[in-house]
Amino acid sequence: MTKIQQFGKKIVDKATEITELSTIGFYDETWAKADILNYLIRQALPEYHSHAVENDWLTDHLATVELTILDFLQTKQPLTAPIFYTIAAQLLGFDDELQANNFNGRQVFKNVGLAITNASDIYHAWYVLLNTHTKNGLLFIDDLASHGYFKASNQRLLFNGKSLVTYDTTNLIQETVWVETAVDSDNDGQFDLVQVDIQRPKSLEKLPVLFTASPYYQGMMLKENDAKIHDVNQPLRYKTPTQVTDKPTARHDMQHMEAISPRVITGETTTATKTFTDLAGRAWDLNNYFLSRGFAVAYAAGVGTRHSDGMQDTGSPEQVESMKNVVEWLAGNRVAFTDRTSQIAMTADWSNHKIAMTGRSYLGTLATAVATTGVEGLKTIISEAAISDWYQYYRDNGLVIAPGGFPGEDMDVLAELVYSRMQDPADWVRTQSTWQVYQKKTMRLQDRQNGNYDGYWAARNYLNQAKDIKVDIISVHGLNDWNVKPRQVYRLWQALQGNGHHHKLILHQGQHININNNRSLDFADQINLWLSDKLLDLDVNATTMLPTVTWQDNTQAQTWHKLNDWGVSANKTTYYLATNQLTLAPASGEGVFTDYLPEVLFKKYTTNFNHWRDQTIKQVPELAQTQQHFSSEIITKSQVINGESVLHLRVKSSQNIGLISAMLIDYGEDDYIKPQTTEQNVMIDRGVNFAKVPLQEFELQKASSKMITIGHINLQNRTNAWQNDALVANEYVAITLKLQPTLYQLRPGHQLGLIIYATDFEMTVRGNQAITYTIDYENSQLTLPQ
Amino acid sequence: MTKIQQFGKKIVDKATEITELSTIGFYDETWAKADILNYLIRQALPEYHSHAVENDWLTDHLATVELTILDFLQTKQPLTAPIFYTIAAQLLGFDDELQANNFNGRQVFKNVGLAITNASDIYHAWYVLLNTHTKNGLLFIDDLASHGYFKASNQRLLFNGKSLVTYDTTNLIQETVWVETAVDSDNDGQFDLVQVDIQRPKSLEKLPVLFTASPYYQGMMLKENDAKIHDVNQPLRYKTPTQVTDKPTARHDMQHMEAISPRVITGETTTATKTFTDLAGRAWDLNNYFLSRGFAVAYAAGVGTRHSDGMQDTGSPEQVESMKNVVEWLAGNRVAFTDRTSQIAMTADWSNHKIAMTGRSYLGTLATAVATTGVEGLKTIISEAAISDWYQYYRDNGLVIAPGGFPGEDMDVLAELVYSRMQDPADWVRTQSTWQVYQKKTMRLQDRQNGNYDGYWAARNYLNQAKDIKVDIISVHGLNDWNVKPRQVYRLWQALQGNGHHHKLILHQGQHININNNRSLDFADQINLWLSDKLLDLDVNATTMLPTVTWQDNTQAQTWHKLNDWGVSANKTTYYLATNQLTLAPASGEGVFTDYLPEVLFKKYTTNFNHWRDQTIKQVPELAQTQQHFSSEIITKSQVINGESVLHLRVKSSQNIGLISAMLIDYGEDDYIKPQTTEQNVMIDRGVNFAKVPLQEFELQKASSKMITIGHINLQNRTNAWQNDALVANEYVAITLKLQPTLYQLRPGHQLGLIIYATDFEMTVRGNQAITYTIDYENSQLTLPQ
Repeated sequence: MTKIQQFGKKIVDKATEITELSTIGFYDETWAKADILNYLIRQALPEYHSHAVENDWLTDHLATVELTILDFLQTKQPLTAPIFYTIAAQLLGFDDELQANNFNGRQVFKNVGLAITNASDIYHAWYVLLNTHTKNGLLFIDDLASHGYFKASNQRLLFNGKSLVTYDTTNLIQETVWVETAVDSDNDGQFDLVQVDIQRPKSLEKLPVLFTASPYYQGMMLKENDAKIHDVNQPLRYKTPTQVTDKPTARHDMQHMEAISPRVITGETTTATKTFTDLAGRAWDLNNYFLSRGFAVAYAAGVGTRHSDGMQDTGSPEQVESMKNVVEWLAGNRVAFTDRTSQIAMTADWSNHKIAMTGRSYLGTLATAVATTGVEGLKTIISEAAISDWYQYYRDNGLVIAPGGFPGEDMDVLAELVYSRMQDPADWVRTQSTWQVYQKKTMRLQDRQNGNYDGYWAARNYLNQAKDIKVDIISVHGLNDWNVKPRQVYRLWQALQGNGHHHKLILHQGQHININNNRSLDFADQINLWLSDKLLDLDVNATTMLPTVTWQDNTQAQTWHKLNDWGVSANKTTYYLATNQLTLAPASGEGVFTDYLPEVLFKKYTTNFNHWRDQTIKQVPELAQTQQHFSSEIITKSQVINGESVLHLRVKSSQNIGLISAMLIDYGEDDYIKPQTTEQNVMIDRGVNFAKVPLQEFELQKASSKMITIGHINLQNRTNAWQNDALVANEYVAITLKLQPTLYQLRPGHQLGLIIYATDFEMTVRGNQAITYTIDYENSQLTLPQ
Repeated sequence: MTKIQQFGKKIVDKATEITELSTIGFYDETWAKADILNYLIRQALPEYHSHAVENDWLTDHLATVELTILDFLQTKQPLTAPIFYTIAAQLLGFDDELQANNFNGRQVFKNVGLAITNASDIYHAWYVLLNTHTKNGLLFIDDLASHGYFKASNQRLLFNGKSLVTYDTTNLIQETVWVETAVDSDNDGQFDLVQVDIQRPKSLEKLPVLFTASPYYQGMMLKENDAKIHDVNQPLRYKTPTQVTDKPTARHDMQHMEAISPRVITGETTTATKTFTDLAGRAWDLNNYFLSRGFAVAYAAGVGTRHSDGMQDTGSPEQVESMKNVVEWLAGNRVAFTDRTSQIAMTADWSNHKIAMTGRSYLGTLATAVATTGVEGLKTIISEAAISDWYQYYRDNGLVIAPGGFPGEDMDVLAELVYSRMQDPADWVRTQSTWQVYQKKTMRLQDRQNGNYDGYWAARNYLNQAKDIKVDIISVHGLNDWNVKPRQVYRLWQALQGNGHHHKLILHQGQHININNNRSLDFADQINLWLSDKLLDLDVNATTMLPTVTWQDNTQAQTWHKLNDWGVSANKTTYYLATNQLTLAPASGEGVFTDYLPEVLFKKYTTNFNHWRDQTIKQVPELAQTQQHFSSEIITKSQVINGESVLHLRVKSSQNIGLISAMLIDYGEDDYIKPQTTEQNVMIDRGVNFAKVPLQEFELQKASSKMITIGHINLQNRTNAWQNDALVANEYVAITLKLQPTLYQLRPGHQLGLIIYATDFEMTVRGNQAITYTIDYENSQLTLPQ
């Protein structure tokens, strides 16, 4: 049975209902009461243009199992709730569930947000119906729009606090400009120009803008990226102890910009000389959704990408500044040109100067980064699976740590991937040598030998400026995202507490994905409400209406909960370590493992780290010597892990180097949410037959275990990530390892598992060094936040 | 390296080149000779609207490794062939191959059909260039169109014999009518109405029409289909011998239509009252390609589908007639109504009355079937992977034989799948009981016990009327299509020999797929040429220009050959059977196998027939007892199998029942064409940003074997498929088993393998009866057509 939660559905008063219905043609005071339903249903058939052909439709659908809708309407009997639900089920596309429920419409809507108090108030019922989701992922009113209900007026129409599909996407203005940035990343004495592509409906209104900053946008150098991947089969190395009292601050050689003069403006225009017909798959789905609703969209790849000037430096202040500069142009505060040479300035005279940034992963990262500049005009960001601190993306606790799925990737590899200037033969010939010098510098600064946090990383840690975010923002993150790990959003969440602005959080059970097109949550509606509020200054109450934290339940399908906070409870559960056990009382003894595999096994797992993780979780004998497994008693009542679990260990290494990894595992035969979504064989329309995307849903799958969270630490970084602590072979040290935060429900009948090990075949270096680790159980424990 | 073969590229004389270039804006007699290239390149940048921004493009691309195109143009030096090829490579999107070839453009085009005789004849070079494919699957002129080169004039423009993208697809007329057919398949005393959906550009011209008859079009009843699947774990049964001299002719209870009066016409109109906004993925790619080129498109699902009247009878004369009736309406020779009740007639006043039918599989089947009616207005068909004889789809040689991949499917199952009237609750309630009675009749007539060809099947064998095809047609078929097997097209090919019309054949190495969007063959261009000829009466020579047979080479990638015929050579190679061997001289001895597997193995293979086939081809020991394997010496020179291989066997069964299956296998470690195509990460545009589809290509994969062909026969159908021959246990009989036709090249170093067995886990019944078969080698042989 389909389940849909609509947190973006507003409850309004009767008068507002009537006004809004009237605006969109679903209310007419001249309609006789007995005919209202008849008028409404016929009006809801936008592809049927005669009474006769409407009758065909009414004849094919049922009011009751014996009566077609046409027959029912002709009887002019009063509408009852059961009949309303039965008709509604057919209008919303739940025909199959209606048949499966013996034509009991009310049953169909048990888990869908359609509930009417009184069928006799037909207008109210209809208003609720229009604001309910169809089975195929759209609000019914949007589904009608998608079938041509609204003529493309190119004028804004609001309904239930959201912008409707009234803008023509078949005839968009699609044009390109070059923004003159405030950076000179290639050090050529000129401010770098960056290309911005704009899509906007032909409208006389000033339009709000969704801006996506995407270094991928101009193409990806896949071969070159692959050639750069670092070898992670490297030994862990001893680091000379240091004493660094203060956390390093940003060290960054920003050019002295005072010496650079802006380009002379030789003319002004509002007409672009470069247009485009098509973004060829490069458009962002959420942006497409808004194009048909009267929002303009802008894309920029930033410095060091195709058709722009400059060099590529992952996450650097220059990269961020170049994206901030695009916002400045969109807000009317900066110059852009029609091309790269003529110096004819072009203004965004169509912009209302209110901008939101959108995007997932690197794109969301840059949205976050630009938000921390406090740039004028940026009213909010919707960032999905975003990095807030690059150190924690490629490093952690003094270790080189790979994002899940990408061992050997690093700042320079990612830079190579998006240095898309390679694609234009002449541009590549011109810039190749400068680029190679530039990349050498990045390779040196990122320092894969050391793994510590330093001034290079501090310059790429946006948490340092989090307090400068001056707007309400939305973050979306997957609790199973081991690429951009959940701590990235958690630290931002913590940093923004009490900053006087709202931070909405949507935590789903997916991996590194977006949820724009999920069936069970009205994500796009919510963002519509939010942006109609933030970018149109409409008083639609989005800020108070939307939940502070939306959490997808990990124990049942299609279920999203509203919460007030994440990871703040002071309550903890403490488990003590004992031989193979997590116990509630302290135990004694030692656990020993040696981080070495015979060559054949080592090779096998280096070529398939997913298999290594599966085998680890399954506790296969061939890995037993390299790991310590602990598991709790069978859990008797539901237990929540809300925030960061912390592992306190007293541990010694047989050498003067060492690292500890840990995973928490949920063991128990059960249904688990699959972190990959499943396509529902239906496309969601983003306008009128525009930019469709597959409808998705998280489905359940039977399994016997699930990794809950993970963490890694260098034994020489016990104090912090920037100081090298001394480590002596065979001497115990104490470490505190914070695992990635989560919000996870352990079910009765399950067991909590903890695995302590060293080499993580997916994430750490893989030296296959025969280091023996010994854990002192008596002084080791695991605390779980509740 | 990309390889592209363009058989649809016309060579025209110089004067025609100039005239055509002039028509589309690429010739101007006022251009100074030294500036022609400059003008042409700038004209080919339709998204660049100023000299300055064009210069940006010219600065990013190279004429030579040292000279940008802009620099080169400013030198006004004469164009050389190397420079032309280098520029062409960049215009056609081969930038990466250009870089890989050290900026040697000529090298890039080694396997792409761009060859100029003389760079100094710039217009000629440009004409050729415009008619060459880009790397991304379009003619360069179409690629320009796709970027907005032509304003949507909604007027026809021809170039190189093909219709250009000049019609606006953002504003199509999309409307529905109901054709009154000449059948009453539900026996309600009224001619069945069938819904037809039409898409057409807004044009004042009369438009040609592409019609796709697709029973799937109104939805598929997947659950109901699955519930109907027949159990194939059934014993083979003894059939009482019969003597049937004549091949059965069609027996079919067509209703007496004389008694039925057509509906009274109450009014006339040319305006539809039912429109639609979107076909939601139901459109046919090849049709989409033609919409932007000024062709109308029609879809109908026929009798017994959603929104149409009538019952569903797979491949029946009524089904075919209903589709023929749609052609009649499109040709101006039949009535259609605006809806199902008002009886207001609507004419296709926009149609030029010239119709082509298109489609793959069931869709192509109905195209073939309608063609055999000789209906007026139908000018050609492009049928892909089509059935010409339903008997050979669900039966063969007296056996129930499943299409590959679909054991247990049959005529009734397919009917259930497409009886889409179930989707409308009221329509289903009304017709459910009639439908169930109807399905019982089909179940009886299809007769899964018997497996013989009879009057029921004769009525669904379009080969019987093949001689009535009065137009030139194109057939496309995969030589690895084990769903609709290659004999379907081969028998049609044979039946049409000498009928005075052209039959073009495209034989690819795929399975049950279409090749519209293949990179290495210009399929869509060819069809454009063909339909511009057949439906527009343009003298573009398509009939003589296109190859009679196009064959995709099975030994190398991206290679298509032009041939004059298929399977007609009288030359044969004969192999004799010997123990484990195919020999060139007769041998003696007997081969024995018993068609029985232990329960565990039997179960394993029933649940995974693909695994069974793989294991069979690998000759695993656990199957050895159930099969006889023969293989030739290592082949020393290339050998072609062209047509139907024939297996003559003298064989006896240990019971009075029996069946023989046989496969030919190519054994040898080598690169084989993968019968599934691979997406090339690029979308092909079907207009201007319209209905894109992924570009595909057949790629090579390393393997050690490949199934070449297959065949099955009931030992009681030695004479033919309609008479039951006597069979006595342990008495030898002679059979002649024609294997599916192919066109296959065996390479030196390989070995030809033959596997003789009985139960085919994918295609035959699976009785697991312990029948022992003995083959008399001395009187058994395999003949291969050359």
